[in-house]
Amino acid sequence: MKQRRVWAPFARTVEVSAGNHRFTMKADDDGWWETELDDNAAESDYAFRIDGSEPLPDPRSPWQPSGVFAPSRPIDHAKFHWSDDCWNQPPLGIIYECHVGTFTAEGTFDATANKLEYLRDLGITHLELMPVAEFPGKHGWGYDGVDLYAPHHAYGGPDGLKRLVDRCHRIGLGVILDVVYNHLGPSGNFLQQFGPYLTDRYRTPWGNAINLDGEYSHEVRRFLCDNALMWLRDYHIDGLRLDAVHAIFDSSAIHFLKQLASEVRVLSAQLRRHFVLTAESELNNPRLVIPPEAGGYGLDAQWSDDFHHAIHGCLTGETSGYYADFGSLSQLAKALHNPYVYDGTFSKFRKRHHGRPAWDLPANRFVVCTQNHDQVGNRAKGDRLVHLVSVAQLKIAAALLMCSPFVPLIFQGEEWAASSPFLYFENHEDSDLVAAIREGRRKEFAHFFKSVNDVPDPHAPQTFIASKLKWNERQSSGHADIYGWYRDLIALRRTNPDLSDPRLDNTDVNFDDERQWLTMRRGSTMLLCNFSDSRRRVFAAGIKHAQLLLASNKAIDIGAAAAEVPPIAVAVVSLDRRRAPI
Amino acid sequence: MKQRRVWAPFARTVEVSAGNHRFTMKADDDGWWETELDDNAAESDYAFRIDGSEPLPDPRSPWQPSGVFAPSRPIDHAKFHWSDDCWNQPPLGIIYECHVGTFTAEGTFDATANKLEYLRDLGITHLELMPVAEFPGKHGWGYDGVDLYAPHHAYGGPDGLKRLVDRCHRIGLGVILDVVYNHLGPSGNFLQQFGPYLTDRYRTPWGNAINLDGEYSHEVRRFLCDNALMWLRDYHIDGLRLDAVHAIFDSSAIHFLKQLASEVRVLSAQLRRHFVLTAESELNNPRLVIPPEAGGYGLDAQWSDDFHHAIHGCLTGETSGYYADFGSLSQLAKALHNPYVYDGTFSKFRKRHHGRPAWDLPANRFVVCTQNHDQVGNRAKGDRLVHLVSVAQLKIAAALLMCSPFVPLIFQGEEWAASSPFLYFENHEDSDLVAAIREGRRKEFAHFFKSVNDVPDPHAPQTFIASKLKWNERQSSGHADIYGWYRDLIALRRTNPDLSDPRLDNTDVNFDDERQWLTMRRGSTMLLCNFSDSRRRVFAAGIKHAQLLLASNKAIDIGAAAAEVPPIAVAVVSLDRRRAPI
Repeated sequence: MKQRRVWAPFARTVEVSAGNHRFTMKADDDGWWETELDDNAAESDYAFRIDGSEPLPDPRSPWQPSGVFAPSRPIDHAKFHWSDDCWNQPPLGIIYECHVGTFTAEGTFDATANKLEYLRDLGITHLELMPVAEFPGKHGWGYDGVDLYAPHHAYGGPDGLKRLVDRCHRIGLGVILDVVYNHLGPSGNFLQQFGPYLTDRYRTPWGNAINLDGEYSHEVRRFLCDNALMWLRDYHIDGLRLDAVHAIFDSSAIHFLKQLASEVRVLSAQLRRHFVLTAESELNNPRLVIPPEAGGYGLDAQWSDDFHHAIHGCLTGETSGYYADFGSLSQLAKALHNPYVYDGTFSKFRKRHHGRPAWDLPANRFVVCTQNHDQVGNRAKGDRLVHLVSVAQLKIAAALLMCSPFVPLIFQGEEWAASSPFLYFENHEDSDLVAAIREGRRKEFAHFFKSVNDVPDPHAPQTFIASKLKWNERQSSGHADIYGWYRDLIALRRTNPDLSDPRLDNTDVNFDDERQWLTMRRGSTMLLCNFSDSRRRVFAAGIKHAQLLLASNKAIDIGAAAAEVPPIAVAVVSLDRRRAPI
Repeated sequence: MKQRRVWAPFARTVEVSAGNHRFTMKADDDGWWETELDDNAAESDYAFRIDGSEPLPDPRSPWQPSGVFAPSRPIDHAKFHWSDDCWNQPPLGIIYECHVGTFTAEGTFDATANKLEYLRDLGITHLELMPVAEFPGKHGWGYDGVDLYAPHHAYGGPDGLKRLVDRCHRIGLGVILDVVYNHLGPSGNFLQQFGPYLTDRYRTPWGNAINLDGEYSHEVRRFLCDNALMWLRDYHIDGLRLDAVHAIFDSSAIHFLKQLASEVRVLSAQLRRHFVLTAESELNNPRLVIPPEAGGYGLDAQWSDDFHHAIHGCLTGETSGYYADFGSLSQLAKALHNPYVYDGTFSKFRKRHHGRPAWDLPANRFVVCTQNHDQVGNRAKGDRLVHLVSVAQLKIAAALLMCSPFVPLIFQGEEWAASSPFLYFENHEDSDLVAAIREGRRKEFAHFFKSVNDVPDPHAPQTFIASKLKWNERQSSGHADIYGWYRDLIALRRTNPDLSDPRLDNTDVNFDDERQWLTMRRGSTMLLCNFSDSRRRVFAAGIKHAQLLLASNKAIDIGAAAAEVPPIAVAVVSLDRRRAPI
């Protein structure tokens, strides 16, 4: 704890200030500067000065108690008392995506921890936290983090996160943490003053890419890999969700994601704990989740947005942006038993061919949803699905999600059709940046509003507050009805082995695009869907002796060769296994 | 032949002028414009006008008889009389890299064809032509081609190339063509006026990258794949050497190189001819040559520069640029039985880790050399190895090359240690570009010369002429000696199955860095090398009854457990197979 180290390969001098003293550091041949503090300074907040600069926080700062512009505080991970000794996470079952700042009124790790019994009772297996690495200001989505090793001070800092994870484990929940390795936030980022963390060889939508294949990239890769290993080792996190890996550019012979996955496997063997790496990717490239032995990167799972878009397109009829590529029942059918709808086919939205097939992979390598922070939050008004479609349609979406062969993820409050939007909000100090972000949103979304002044202002406190869940609405009748539907569906998925079977070839989908019905058979369990607003005869082999398991509208008639399904309704039935071999 | 088609997705009008007439073209939904010419115009030179522009050559022009700025000329591939009906190429044996403009005094395809008996007698299996696609001016290296479908007019155009390939096949030589799919030349390139062929999302050392993953990239990929297929189908080329694939950027789920390899396999099945795709790459990434079933791109072979650098470093002692990473006998030893010396290890030159191991792949997936157009031509004075080291050292280099497990490539004239340098030369019309190139060379190389004016001027005709081979020097005594050594080594490689055995685990290398000797055993054939200028005892199991096959200095003594090798000498011996099992 007395040693301070920092990598600054181009610096001529590096000092560390701590406890009102300055200590001169010495460099080794690899550009790592090192010194030992005295006993007093060892416990104090500290900062580095590169070539006589202003004091800068540690790139690997474990704690920024006063935010991104203030000094770093040392911590000793050994001091925390864990109570999860025998813990090992379950397989990915149902993931619950949570934004710490808006999940509760308090917006802290500790307040989140008070909801864990609720999540367990709902049937959740994994809590997924949106990024918690220190970002500028008190609140924000978290994707503009700059101190990647420091849990956000306003959420409760390092100890708060550890208490949350510990309580998750005690109650039986795994914890997945969203980490951003494709860019760094635009404000409060001092990394470039320490070394070549960034490169202008590639562009991301959010600025310069991370330097993963240029000079000194071995140290930048270590910076990110060590960060991943820290969350798993020192915070007992069970897995990572890697943000937007399509914006991670690396032409090295060993792709960064492959290195990361392989280092996590080593840690897993050392600690005898199972970890999961999932990735958000819009590449529709199965290489991410193909095992390294077969030439892949060896991640455990990836998000597949096509599933979301196919359902959203069918239910809302929206055709703008990427929804131009969706909207037909045949695409939805494909999405239910293929990880990608666009698997080499031409995309009108992208104006090119997109993706390659992945139907030969297990379905549990893909995480799907009907709502998530991006799909809700990147809309002009932060609308959830309930704001766009009827309750009957919402129930169809939920049933498709929970009966699909893929790993379902739900977004906080989705399970009771929360009324709160999830808007884009930030709390930057830099007024130019604040104005630029505000202007950007106005430009993008003005046409959704009567006046440009109605576009929600990301910087206004109200925008953040409006996005918080209102937990007391959950018991009111409409919300309780949706909640019951989700809880029943989740219980069914977790108890019916047909539904959690990850074999795609155990899934059979039929549909009639004109009459707007669709069936999805999974082993001897079948989902019957009527999207039309008329009663529909839905044909299904083996339906004769079917048992009704769940229905959004009980007025369903099961006949000899077909079922009569009420308008805009969905049912799950158990087929007679002997009479209907798949 | 009467139809003209061109892709111009953003054009509002496209006309084709031919035979003093203009014909209006009509577009389909994919942005392809089409029209039918009358009989008279169908045979005439033609050009396109996009939105009323100046006349522009066809992006897929098959022939630019008057250079890159002039109209295109139609050709009918069916009219050429081929005489290679039963031809199918041999496996890659010995590749001979040839620059058509400097290989002969005339600098044409036909003049090249007059040397084929010579190449056959030398033992060459494949003639590799540096790029022949139409580039600006009369002479140049060819890597700034802009009309990728048109064989260079000054070399003899389409029919000249066909005559050369046909004669190669009649005499038993395969033909590999160098193609550039990573950038387009800086002058005479009108493609961007037709469509989004280029992108600024990625940078290459030579300007904007090709658009392989953005909007409309499906058509750009077709442009390149169709080009590759054309050479193989219409020109009977046996294989392609893909230039600098590390500068091909593509984040699509199906990498461009994988698509290309797969389309070439289809053509191969259709035509019942074997094709080879080789690639220049500095990524040290075996994915290029791993079969698609194992997650690779499925190319047949890639150039491995580390082999060259390891030999060059040991023999010349040079340490500038990438030679900083080489120079020891242990690296040379690694290069002799590993495709990459840098296979994940730290590179001082690149200031990062580089590559990944590839020792589990067959050795014939890698093409190696001790000299090539780049290694010679990118030096200040265009020096060949003979200009840098002694004849005795040159013979060691040649023996290492021809006895290595990899596919050897030699650069035109290397086999007689030609006195001509291979300088960088161009013949651009654009005077600003000419000045910029001249200045660039002066800046880079001034310190090698007494005066900056001594730096060879790429635009001076003398620079081109000096680079031509002087065939009449070949019979003079020094050159004839080297020639005999190459011829004997090639004959040995082609007749001794140990040497062409592509198994890396059949190769065993020993060395003594201090005493500067090295042995390489391939099955029961062994190479004994003494790099020092003293006589050396070289230890080798099974040497006792060895038969001398070849020696650069006959004063070698074979003893019971070691051989006495004269200073700076190399010998190849056949071991007693029964006494020395590997």
